[in-house]
Amino acid sequence: MHIAITGAAGFLGQRLVAQLLDRGELDGDAIRRLTLVDQAEPPVVAKEGVEIRSLALDISTPGALDPVLEAGPDVIYHLAAVVSSAAEADLDLGMRVNFDATRALLEGCRAHGLSRTRLIMASSVAAYGGELPAVLDDMTALHPQNSYGAQKAMSELLVNDYSRRGLVDGLVLRLPTIVIRPGRPNAAASSFASSILREPLNGEEAICPVPTDLELFVMSPGRVVDALIHGAGVSGEALRTFRAFMLPGITVSVAEMLEALREVAGDEALARVRHEPDPRIEAIVGSWPARFTNERARQLGFKNDKDFREIVEAFLGERA
Amino acid sequence: MHIAITGAAGFLGQRLVAQLLDRGELDGDAIRRLTLVDQAEPPVVAKEGVEIRSLALDISTPGALDPVLEAGPDVIYHLAAVVSSAAEADLDLGMRVNFDATRALLEGCRAHGLSRTRLIMASSVAAYGGELPAVLDDMTALHPQNSYGAQKAMSELLVNDYSRRGLVDGLVLRLPTIVIRPGRPNAAASSFASSILREPLNGEEAICPVPTDLELFVMSPGRVVDALIHGAGVSGEALRTFRAFMLPGITVSVAEMLEALREVAGDEALARVRHEPDPRIEAIVGSWPARFTNERARQLGFKNDKDFREIVEAFLGERA
Ligand SMILES: NC(=O)c1ccc[n+]([C@@H]2O[C@H](COP(=O)([O-])OP(=O)(O)OC[C@H]3O[C@@H](n4cnc5c(N)ncnc54)[C@H](O)[C@@H]3O)[C@@H](O)[C@H]2O)c1
Ligand SMILES: NC(=O)c1ccc[n+]([C@@H]2O[C@H](COP(=O)([O-])OP(=O)(O)OC[C@H]3O[C@@H](n4cnc5c(N)ncnc54)[C@H](O)[C@@H]3O)[C@@H](O)[C@H]2O)c1
Repeated sequence: MHIAITGAAGFLGQRLVAQLLDRGELDGDAIRRLTLVDQAEPPVVAKEGVEIRSLALDISTPGALDPVLEAGPDVIYHLAAVVSSAAEADLDLGMRVNFDATRALLEGCRAHGLSRTRLIMASSVAAYGGELPAVLDDMTALHPQNSYGAQKAMSELLVNDYSRRGLVDGLVLRLPTIVIRPGRPNAAASSFASSILREPLNGEEAICPVPTDLELFVMSPGRVVDALIHGAGVSGEALRTFRAFMLPGITVSVAEMLEALREVAGDEALARVRHEPDPRIEAIVGSWPARFTNERARQLGFKNDKDFREIVEAFLGERA
Repeated sequence: MHIAITGAAGFLGQRLVAQLLDRGELDGDAIRRLTLVDQAEPPVVAKEGVEIRSLALDISTPGALDPVLEAGPDVIYHLAAVVSSAAEADLDLGMRVNFDATRALLEGCRAHGLSRTRLIMASSVAAYGGELPAVLDDMTALHPQNSYGAQKAMSELLVNDYSRRGLVDGLVLRLPTIVIRPGRPNAAASSFASSILREPLNGEEAICPVPTDLELFVMSPGRVVDALIHGAGVSGEALRTFRAFMLPGITVSVAEMLEALREVAGDEALARVRHEPDPRIEAIVGSWPARFTNERARQLGFKNDKDFREIVEAFLGERA
């Protein structure tokens, strides 16, 4: 089993690599080879019996992935992307990395005859937007309200069409908001969703910029990586007529998130969260859908986090 | 008012040109200039007071549309396309003409600062597919099952994103199956839908390859052209969060179509239709959605044909 990963130096990429090396197998086959790609050489720890290549390349350069595809990987995880704020700030950059590079990857699979290669791409809840119903299902239209979401939605259509034509065996997973991200707060509108847990758990102050009745659709990093791994074993037939769908997050209000914080770390931790409404952040985050039926994902065996407390405990467990 | 039309030599393009010249105005402004583009020079009849340029060019050649866009048209009708069977037979051709050329047109508008230009593109009912509900609405997802539909769906997302960013003022109309097309039967799976009316009305035999309870979602060529013209006057604000939607066709069964034929042209005409089931055609046409709520189109003032009899009578009127 040879696995290639684009964006392997990123947040999810690094976790996926660690998890794959830890398991040693994917979909029942021993992992013999791993090809990691990112703009800078993805860091990786050597492992007995696995041939690992770590490559620094820009996947939006024509032909850049040829050496990877020539080797005929069995599974490709396509995680490289320009995040939403950057894609909104620079349309050309977003189109080049989020769409053209996906197309080039599909064309590369076609050129190298990789019709049986499982290509797993990460899409996003940001592909949804506009006048949404209260609860979204697998037939809810994608009307993205940002360029990142539009580029992901276009890539989904292309992965589906290339799969339908038998040129590759694609699968696109739309990811919920991921919490709790480690590290520092950043410019993303969703940054607070990790901050209001992570900082208090680390003994620091955090600001909550939204009303506590605001709901989010979230998934822990661990469950996302589980989904990426599970996706390798889902058959093309089971994916039927469309290769993209939303992963099963859980719906939580900010109040429920803070209650989980209190249960796990006490009133002292909760007191470290200051409430300072920011209408700009509320407007952005409040427009994201928070309720999904997730029928397809569940039928296909993808699993959600049990509850928010489990997400907090998993974060604490990893930190320890 | 300067109007540019791609695919102006085509079936709809020629009808649109004739209608525009006949009206002499669009959205209340006198038409002073018309720029017609197609692979071969679009035929056109001169008209007093209107400067008409007819250009032979391949819109998928980079920069081909620059001379058109430099002149800053107020309205662009983007009708040039490779039809569904051709796009299915040749993925590269379909991607180049149906998607890349649309993108190049959007980029051209951006480069030439045409943020206020109304760009009207024709999409298709073929963008829908997969496991559809019995009645489709404006939030039904596009899961196209052919490359033509995928290319149209991707173009829709791009027109929407460029419009949202204020780079152009786009509008995409998804067209129902168009009946009655003049001319001869062709290889399209939907060819019979025009044939079973047109041929008997012309005193010729026709074959009906599908069960008579099969339903179709149809619109007359006249109503489609009306919609293209109406679209020029719909404000960007009224289009709200997504720039593409389905036009209001009417749902008719083949039995109802044949009954309209009998009413208009008698039992003699009806007897010219031979029933020879073709499971291949039934499978394709039977997978097309036939019922839509069309809320957005109606709110925006787009009109459907009254009933199928009106469609038959309009065809007879034009033929006369
Ligand atoms: N909730 C969500 O919507 C959501 C959340 C997380 C991730 N995602 C998606 O999951 C994937 C991984 O996300 P992440 O959180 O690990 O992001 P990340 O930013 O940490 O990782 C992305 C990686 O892609 C690399 N990259 C960017 N452009 C590249 C190029 N031209 N060539 C090669 N490498 C390039 C970056 O260097 C980075 O290491 C992305 O596709 C992202 O869009 C979606
Ligand atoms: N029900 C439907 O789904 C449906 C029905 C009809 C039309 N449509 C859409 O409406 C539009 C017009 O359809 P039509 O019936 O008039 O089709 P048509 O084939 O008669 O016209 C299309 C025109 O585009 C031109 N063209 C193709 N490639 C070109 C290129 N590279 N450069 C320049 N011109 C090019 C062709 O020469 C042709 O004249 C198309 O976009 C079509 O996809 C959809």
